[in-house]
Amino acid sequence: MPETLISVDLKQSPYDNPKIHNRWHPDIPMACWVKPGDDFVLETFDWTGGFIKNNDSADDVRDIDLSTVHFLSGPVGVKGAEPGDLLVVDLLDIGAKDDSLWGFNGFFSKKNGGGFLTDHFPLAQKSIWDFHGMFTSSRHIPNVKFAGLIHPGLIGCLPDQKMLNMWNEREVEFIATQPDRVPPLANPPFAKTTHAGAATGDVKTKIENEGARTVPPREHGGNCDIKDLSRGSKIYFPVYVDGAGLSVGDLHFSQGDGEITFCGAIEMAGWVHMKVELIKGGMAKYGIKNPIFKPSPITPQYNDYLIFEGISVDEQGKQHYLDVNVAYRQACLNAIEYMTKFGYSRAQAYSILGTAPVQGHISGVVDIPNACATLWLPTGIFDFDINPTAAGPQKLVTPGFDMPLSQDL
Amino acid sequence: MPETLISVDLKQSPYDNPKIHNRWHPDIPMACWVKPGDDFVLETFDWTGGFIKNNDSADDVRDIDLSTVHFLSGPVGVKGAEPGDLLVVDLLDIGAKDDSLWGFNGFFSKKNGGGFLTDHFPLAQKSIWDFHGMFTSSRHIPNVKFAGLIHPGLIGCLPDQKMLNMWNEREVEFIATQPDRVPPLANPPFAKTTHAGAATGDVKTKIENEGARTVPPREHGGNCDIKDLSRGSKIYFPVYVDGAGLSVGDLHFSQGDGEITFCGAIEMAGWVHMKVELIKGGMAKYGIKNPIFKPSPITPQYNDYLIFEGISVDEQGKQHYLDVNVAYRQACLNAIEYMTKFGYSRAQAYSILGTAPVQGHISGVVDIPNACATLWLPTGIFDFDINPTAAGPQKLVTPGFDMPLSQDL
Amino acid sequence: MPETLISVDLKQSPYDNPKIHNRWHPDIPMACWVKPGDDFVLETFDWTGGFIKNNDSADDVRDIDLSTVHFLSGPVGVKGAEPGDLLVVDLLDIGAKDDSLWGFNGFFSKKNGGGFLTDHFPLAQKSIWDFHGMFTSSRHIPNVKFAGLIHPGLIGCLPDQKMLNMWNEREVEFIATQPDRVPPLANPPFAKTTHAGAATGDVKTKIENEGARTVPPREHGGNCDIKDLSRGSKIYFPVYVDGAGLSVGDLHFSQGDGEITFCGAIEMAGWVHMKVELIKGGMAKYGIKNPIFKPSPITPQYNDYLIFEGISVDEQGKQHYLDVNVAYRQACLNAIEYMTKFGYSRAQAYSILGTAPVQGHISGVVDIPNACATLWLPTGIFDFDINPTAAGPQKLVTPGFDMPLSQDL
Amino acid sequence: MPETLISVDLKQSPYDNPKIHNRWHPDIPMACWVKPGDDFVLETFDWTGGFIKNNDSADDVRDIDLSTVHFLSGPVGVKGAEPGDLLVVDLLDIGAKDDSLWGFNGFFSKKNGGGFLTDHFPLAQKSIWDFHGMFTSSRHIPNVKFAGLIHPGLIGCLPDQKMLNMWNEREVEFIATQPDRVPPLANPPFAKTTHAGAATGDVKTKIENEGARTVPPREHGGNCDIKDLSRGSKIYFPVYVDGAGLSVGDLHFSQGDGEITFCGAIEMAGWVHMKVELIKGGMAKYGIKNPIFKPSPITPQYNDYLIFEGISVDEQGKQHYLDVNVAYRQACLNAIEYMTKFGYSRAQAYSILGTAPVQGHISGVVDIPNACATLWLPTGIFDFDINPTAAGPQKLVTPGFDMPLSQDL
Repeated sequence: MPETLISVDLKQSPYDNPKIHNRWHPDIPMACWVKPGDDFVLETFDWTGGFIKNNDSADDVRDIDLSTVHFLSGPVGVKGAEPGDLLVVDLLDIGAKDDSLWGFNGFFSKKNGGGFLTDHFPLAQKSIWDFHGMFTSSRHIPNVKFAGLIHPGLIGCLPDQKMLNMWNEREVEFIATQPDRVPPLANPPFAKTTHAGAATGDVKTKIENEGARTVPPREHGGNCDIKDLSRGSKIYFPVYVDGAGLSVGDLHFSQGDGEITFCGAIEMAGWVHMKVELIKGGMAKYGIKNPIFKPSPITPQYNDYLIFEGISVDEQGKQHYLDVNVAYRQACLNAIEYMTKFGYSRAQAYSILGTAPVQGHISGVVDIPNACATLWLPTGIFDFDINPTAAGPQKLVTPGFDMPLSQDL
Repeated sequence: MPETLISVDLKQSPYDNPKIHNRWHPDIPMACWVKPGDDFVLETFDWTGGFIKNNDSADDVRDIDLSTVHFLSGPVGVKGAEPGDLLVVDLLDIGAKDDSLWGFNGFFSKKNGGGFLTDHFPLAQKSIWDFHGMFTSSRHIPNVKFAGLIHPGLIGCLPDQKMLNMWNEREVEFIATQPDRVPPLANPPFAKTTHAGAATGDVKTKIENEGARTVPPREHGGNCDIKDLSRGSKIYFPVYVDGAGLSVGDLHFSQGDGEITFCGAIEMAGWVHMKVELIKGGMAKYGIKNPIFKPSPITPQYNDYLIFEGISVDEQGKQHYLDVNVAYRQACLNAIEYMTKFGYSRAQAYSILGTAPVQGHISGVVDIPNACATLWLPTGIFDFDINPTAAGPQKLVTPGFDMPLSQDL
Repeated sequence: MPETLISVDLKQSPYDNPKIHNRWHPDIPMACWVKPGDDFVLETFDWTGGFIKNNDSADDVRDIDLSTVHFLSGPVGVKGAEPGDLLVVDLLDIGAKDDSLWGFNGFFSKKNGGGFLTDHFPLAQKSIWDFHGMFTSSRHIPNVKFAGLIHPGLIGCLPDQKMLNMWNEREVEFIATQPDRVPPLANPPFAKTTHAGAATGDVKTKIENEGARTVPPREHGGNCDIKDLSRGSKIYFPVYVDGAGLSVGDLHFSQGDGEITFCGAIEMAGWVHMKVELIKGGMAKYGIKNPIFKPSPITPQYNDYLIFEGISVDEQGKQHYLDVNVAYRQACLNAIEYMTKFGYSRAQAYSILGTAPVQGHISGVVDIPNACATLWLPTGIFDFDINPTAAGPQKLVTPGFDMPLSQDL
Repeated sequence: MPETLISVDLKQSPYDNPKIHNRWHPDIPMACWVKPGDDFVLETFDWTGGFIKNNDSADDVRDIDLSTVHFLSGPVGVKGAEPGDLLVVDLLDIGAKDDSLWGFNGFFSKKNGGGFLTDHFPLAQKSIWDFHGMFTSSRHIPNVKFAGLIHPGLIGCLPDQKMLNMWNEREVEFIATQPDRVPPLANPPFAKTTHAGAATGDVKTKIENEGARTVPPREHGGNCDIKDLSRGSKIYFPVYVDGAGLSVGDLHFSQGDGEITFCGAIEMAGWVHMKVELIKGGMAKYGIKNPIFKPSPITPQYNDYLIFEGISVDEQGKQHYLDVNVAYRQACLNAIEYMTKFGYSRAQAYSILGTAPVQGHISGVVDIPNACATLWLPTGIFDFDINPTAAGPQKLVTPGFDMPLSQDL
């Protein structure tokens, strides 16, 4: 039985747990230590630390203070790890906590972070997903069920001071180019809601002042939100500090490529069973800047897809230059429009794209001026046939269900 | 035996074949007519119409006049097709021509179109790929072999005059924002090298003056360069003109997501065996703007991947806002760097990313300010083990081979 | 949180748990009741009820009394189920018990049941497999690791009296054709070691006298040992008695097609999370005699295989008529011989065939006089390259490990 | 362009083509020679040499003289190949001949060879399958279409005299145990219909008298009828004579595991593009008795299955001891019964099992007295939903079609 090195009590505030932190900083004290070859379990809060509830109101999605996220478990010190090494992490298994067999997906209000389609869905909405063993379904979105491609949205090692400084500089400078933008271009360090783990005193103050926010993925990995970094996969992380300092959180029961709804995938509290090893000097040996990984041998197989194309001409007909974001947004909007023909609301369709094992491919990025992106919708997640036929679509979605919506205050 | 409705003679200029055209325009005469339910074969030139040769010099890649491309076979008129219908196309099979069992991949000079990594590879280079049944390998890039995911880079129906006008307006306006850019932002109509199919007289002149260039993918599909639109797939195309006017060309023996080398995939002359059917009024019934498709049941399975991450901080350390292009470029550069550790030149590694069945995923597009993209490199295409190990990489690539390079004139 | 309807204490004898039984009989009292649409958890003993231990001796494999097996959890009564219905069972998830994260595989002595290759491996041997999250490896068989295709070896509904009588008659008659055979042709009812669940008095006595042994698969399913009936699959069981009476046990962490080692797969104690529904009158509607099922969308992907052929000429060169058993035995022996060239002992190789996700296909059964069977060995389970090369095999298996063996007494 | 070393004219009798043979014998002259590393094309007749016609009568299936089959192309001599080597064959591609884009499947009369279910289908029947690029469908069996898993039913190297003698002895002895059986237990050498390739004079006579019939698979491979030995796979054949002598024929557009209909798969004339290499002394190095192979990376993906179980109790309720043949027969009969509920005739259902990419697994072979076999029916080959539902099956098969049947004379 592997040892649980970090436990979380979902009834407790994550701020009261010294083995949790919500910023990246080299001075966050190691929460525990392991040796290469060890396997162990870390429990995690959901990314909001329990703020979002299993109910039928989107008020919590509207009201959340995003400066508090993400609550991570760690850092785990690995004996012998030195800067320049690669930390090899096997995700042996991941699951929800037995007392919390549900997750949430939502859209933030445009005023509070928005999402990929925030101009189309500017208000807070929420769907709750129940877990049935390896499967999930939602009381807010009928006729869809799928197996979870369970993964951590956020995982990585602590930066050293030099990398941290670089992050802060480039992001603060970037914010300064449009300081009043809503949502903002990026998030600077923010002392008030910092959870510095077990740090106290001056160290804590330093972390509060300098700690990088956890929202973006960066060189160390971090909040990559890669759906394929799932249980069973093997990851090679750059090490920047002695002991590596591996932290993990933001578990997802399932997610579509892009995590387009931002709040987010199917977000859950849970646990990660992992094993660590080292490749000494691996960063230079393999020329590694960002993490690399190998996918799991055991992933859900939904191999029949309906594939939607999008090009980099936006909703207003404006031309963009090889812009994959615009192209993917069009592919997403095309898929949403298609799903409404079968009876889904636009919000339900958007949520399906954010939660189901949808693929987003960068199909063409050289054919000026249009990029081409494709969104792959797995047909097997629906309990009816969603393929086109000569007869045209039927309204096969069970009526009477929709996602809660909360008006901005 | 299905009828070959369009034949091409690779020794002949495509300009001499009236069933070929290289612009999009509603007035291009139908090259032939079929009925719904028919299956038939169209032969095609390679996209350059034979300009690139099977030799060991990149001069042709450097010198090509890109205003001549792409040479398409068609348009095929479908009886009964009307604007608003969906044309359902089954790609029953695709292959190289028996007298041309090879293809090319190259990088354009930055002065002549460049490519996704043109700042890193500014000069013309070329690799030749030989076909061995369903497999391919290159005399310029050792130790790699893979099965072809054969697909048309370019396929779609004729636009109507209204859509054509919209294309021309938005692209010409777009070019006007940076008229002197090299490479240009887009390509306007260009009379001199127009091939208007069987059109003559005033109609031909009109096509020369208005015909949309074939480079970008647009609402009708066109040059999508989607590697998964492969033989065995089924596509639903919007119909804009009576008879639909389906054209196809730019066949690829294999391509990585993004077609990042631009010149291009593994480009070949060949033939397409297809079947057509109609969904009357399908565009409105299904809310279709761009084509949708279903992938083939018969595609190469390279299921073990090494996955590289990239974020939207560019090579100079500059921050970009959720920019998938920048993120994917970093993932590509990370993969190239990795491959050099085993002995490949950077050009060889870049060419592998452009030709092999590499996946490019839009992994995260909401975690401000960084997008995260992933490049999936199939490990099974190499004849050595390219996975990381504790021992570090060995120089396992056979030395003495590289891609021809031609200096700019 | 689904309710655990049946719990097992691995320190307790299964005979002391009234919700366990080891015979099939319509009069075994329902251990609990559920409604269609319910999901719930059943814990199970390993098939031997804890007789085989996690140690390095095969004495327990040699000495086990096979009249005691299999210890099943149930029967679960389903309200409204009637003879002629189909009971639809979703295997939502399956796992090992947290206090028992290991399993065993072994060969019975030929005197005590033997196995598929008992003439080649006539003595008791054992290997222990540790579970590391979704993966397993053995301290007795180095250089091999794989993800578990977790499944119940044994699951089905209670027979009615008429079916039970038919089973007993045909098997007792069959035994009578070779009453002294070792191992026997089949196993008749056996009162002494019967566990009749919660039955008492005359009912218990009747079950002891008539209860069908659990070893063979029969019309109702039962001990099918189908590796693909794994977590995530959906099964349609014939119902013979009011309430159906669903029982399950004999959990396997992984198994090769055929369960050729008999003792058995990687056998474990654990739990099954399942959901039940009914198709009223489904047996007649669909012409169902034996269960049918749909495989899981989430199964380990080991897609690169080395495939061994065998024909129905036996080890002594004797010709058999289209006999798939003989052909599969040859394919197994061919695979074992091959693996020894890399350093495995024959016993280790045999155990790999019994435990790993090996496929066994009936390839040809009409080409008189030889059947052809194929054994598919997944190459990805080895940590070295087991493919043939021009250089010939290397002894890459770490020396110094083997499986415990116990001489017959 | 690979060279076509053996051409066949489908209008000609195979007996008139000296590069064809229909017996195995070491003295059959090499039809052509190649070097290791060469790739080349061999054209082949269908296995009957053109006897079965593309029409709507089963008379030809009833009347065929099975002593004439199989017409093989070869033998191909490989320079440097010596007894004890492994001949490595890459099946680079396989296809139908352009002038023969169809195939046949049938059931032999029980009097003329029968098939796996001959007691249930004792009369000659036939279905014709048309090829549409990579797909096939039949005018005799509606609502089913699938991609071809194209493969040679028969491929292997020439035996040496010692092996040939062993084959003849064991089969002749075997026939002698039931000399009057219909169909026979095996087929002895038969001079009259022998095609000895280019042999003449005494050599020809010797081949006529000793040449082993091509029906069964044997140690060298031969008529294995393994559906997964498909284009793209790599095979390692034992070499017994100088030059190896590789022959191939009996091409199948598609087949289910077991080739249960015997006549046979979807049988076709066509061509094989292959490459050969040698592993010197490979038989001893790897302990090879029968061929081994690796499957193709490019095979049709029909991953959703409905799986039928069968046990070794026969149609009359008789118990058999761990007999996989009986168990697989029950699984096949269960699948046929199920398909009839949707409107197929029993003959149509049987033909689907023989032609579609159906899997047959040896699921359990140790649980005395019952073997368990499973038949995997891919649901994606049907144009309607063939899964069980609470509503029960609908008669969705288009009525009015069936397979021609010919009464015995």
